[in-house]
Amino acid sequence: EEVAKLLQLKAQLGGDDGKHTFVLKTAKGTRDYNPKQMAIREKVFNTIISCFKRHGAETIDTPVFELKETLTGKYGEDSKLIYDLKDQGGELLSLRYDLTVPFARYLAMNKITNIKRYHIAKVYRRDNPAMTRGRYREFYQCDFDIAGQYDPMIPDAECLKIVYEILSELDLGDFHIKVNDRRILDGMFAVCGVPDDKFRTICSTVDKLDKMPWEEVKNEMVKEKGLSEEAADQIGEYVSMQGGMDLAERLLQDPKLSQSKQACAGLTDMKQLFSYLQLFQVTDKLSAEKVRTTETQVLVASAQKNLLEERLKLTAELWNAGIKAEVLYKKNPKLLTQLQHCEETGIPLVAILGEQELKDGVVKLRNVATRDEVDVSRAELVEEIKKRTSES
Amino acid sequence: EEVAKLLQLKAQLGGDDGKHTFVLKTAKGTRDYNPKQMAIREKVFNTIISCFKRHGAETIDTPVFELKETLTGKYGEDSKLIYDLKDQGGELLSLRYDLTVPFARYLAMNKITNIKRYHIAKVYRRDNPAMTRGRYREFYQCDFDIAGQYDPMIPDAECLKIVYEILSELDLGDFHIKVNDRRILDGMFAVCGVPDDKFRTICSTVDKLDKMPWEEVKNEMVKEKGLSEEAADQIGEYVSMQGGMDLAERLLQDPKLSQSKQACAGLTDMKQLFSYLQLFQVTDKLSAEKVRTTETQVLVASAQKNLLEERLKLTAELWNAGIKAEVLYKKNPKLLTQLQHCEETGIPLVAILGEQELKDGVVKLRNVATRDEVDVSRAELVEEIKKRTSES
Repeated sequence: EEVAKLLQLKAQLGGDDGKHTFVLKTAKGTRDYNPKQMAIREKVFNTIISCFKRHGAETIDTPVFELKETLTGKYGEDSKLIYDLKDQGGELLSLRYDLTVPFARYLAMNKITNIKRYHIAKVYRRDNPAMTRGRYREFYQCDFDIAGQYDPMIPDAECLKIVYEILSELDLGDFHIKVNDRRILDGMFAVCGVPDDKFRTICSTVDKLDKMPWEEVKNEMVKEKGLSEEAADQIGEYVSMQGGMDLAERLLQDPKLSQSKQACAGLTDMKQLFSYLQLFQVTDKLSAEKVRTTETQVLVASAQKNLLEERLKLTAELWNAGIKAEVLYKKNPKLLTQLQHCEETGIPLVAILGEQELKDGVVKLRNVATRDEVDVSRAELVEEIKKRTSES
Repeated sequence: EEVAKLLQLKAQLGGDDGKHTFVLKTAKGTRDYNPKQMAIREKVFNTIISCFKRHGAETIDTPVFELKETLTGKYGEDSKLIYDLKDQGGELLSLRYDLTVPFARYLAMNKITNIKRYHIAKVYRRDNPAMTRGRYREFYQCDFDIAGQYDPMIPDAECLKIVYEILSELDLGDFHIKVNDRRILDGMFAVCGVPDDKFRTICSTVDKLDKMPWEEVKNEMVKEKGLSEEAADQIGEYVSMQGGMDLAERLLQDPKLSQSKQACAGLTDMKQLFSYLQLFQVTDKLSAEKVRTTETQVLVASAQKNLLEERLKLTAELWNAGIKAEVLYKKNPKLLTQLQHCEETGIPLVAILGEQELKDGVVKLRNVATRDEVDVSRAELVEEIKKRTSES
């Protein structure tokens, strides 16, 4: 019945008769993932999740929508980007905007104070994203949080270790992880003479250094936000500094900054963090391979006619032995067709049956890439396939 | 910053000061999954996905919402259960109700005709589900489809092989897979004299056999849908039949049913399916065993009228020999009623008496599951029942 429904729907959706003016598209800002994209996604997720598991993290899942009031007031100005569900009677609901608020709701509801959890799931924002730059209205977030009270900087160091491991294993090329401590920035503002009531707004201007050059940032501080040029220049000097342990030590000696208790606390913690990161040192490793959308190890094929039953039997034998196998759904497919299927989908091996092979109790095992063929006895076939596919 | 936000939210959500009257709950019909539930889910999903991969399947993903018009008209009466998103400007959207319509939309949009894909994802229904019975408004569906034109029954056999493998590997206990072919049911309707324009409605009544007893189903056919009592009884006899290859063969010989070309086509395909299933080694281990509340080994029954006394006599013989036996307390019960009692309560054997059997000094011993019938002499009946019920 499902199949009938599907065929009917397909006919309806894809009708060539021109009668249907059906809009065939996904919602704005969303996309399908085809098998190739899914294979890549799976590989990336597996790398990430293996890392989280190696670090002893648990995972939870929460519904895709929450009570509207659970989300209300949590996102400030961005609240207008929340997707609300239509009021069809009952509760007022909204699609989740991130995974942090649902996590907080989960902790509070279950009175949980300590948990190391990851959550990889889609979130929803009614933004006008630049889809050409990979931004969408439905997109994945990958959250890792350590909730609880611990000695300073130890969980923070583990989080950074995890980021380092994942970025290394994903083999994305060189990367740079930036760390900060809000108390250091606040201390800088204080010693540079930023009035208390301007901390927030000057901070949001400094954040723009990612996107615009210093001159423009300074301009905004001075012209728009009324900061003195001198204060702006001092801030500019501080925020342009980059470094690790050495910088934290240098700033602790800085005659001006060291006058701020806040900044000193932040810098001391930062030193602690860098010392833990040294203890956590890691080595990189790499690997790369071609993208396949299935994991099939072998295609069961025949060169002669009337061997469908033998093909099906052998396929079942392989499945039962845990081998990933496929067979073409055709009574008498040509050998060429069968080999082409392997090349198109990247299946590395073909098990070929013929009258002679059946008589001899063997299977011709062909390496698709090298075209090498050897006779393998039925009894040893599973082992041989496992051996050959574990090598690659 | 994320951490600060989180802590702030947690304080806000879970504050102990009693100032907050925040509702801490998930939306109606939804639930969180805690780490333990997630670990179980992961294990189950891995079993299922490994099987799909062993069979060379790909996976795709589609957005959680679709254009409202993509879903409109696809679910008939159930359309009222679709979650719509609020009109916040732009497209009108709805949460997906199943994975089939998005799959059809995906195939049509990308002009794909051949694909073997699985898709495990959440779907949304504004139902009033019995959550105590594990039904929710947000729940997972697991779809596996083979789209394309192939030689008959080969993909169908693989689908069943997959269901068989997954249910076996999940180790859920015994199971029973039911297969059908719509053409057989339509053929039955035709030869039983159901008017063409009543096929659909009678079909939906027959579907209710899962949930209500035959008497009620018949009542609906006759009283509500205006079918003749005779036609209803004939349908009842056909649809009560269960079996595999043997039943398909028997029905192909059925003088009435074999007059329907449709039914014959369906039955021939069904035979083909069973032959492939044998090659795939699916049929051997299948047997139905539901939880039984009695231990009755045999029901003493008769096909003809006026045999109450003989039934009672045989029942007593069996009791005296230590056999757990039942008999219906009705002078002239229909054979169908007696067989249904066995199926409902899990009685594995029926001892059937008729004029001919009495004359020959035998009893027709019927296996309820397989429909097999053999004549057993009265002298050997007790031993035969003991033998058969000790095996299982």
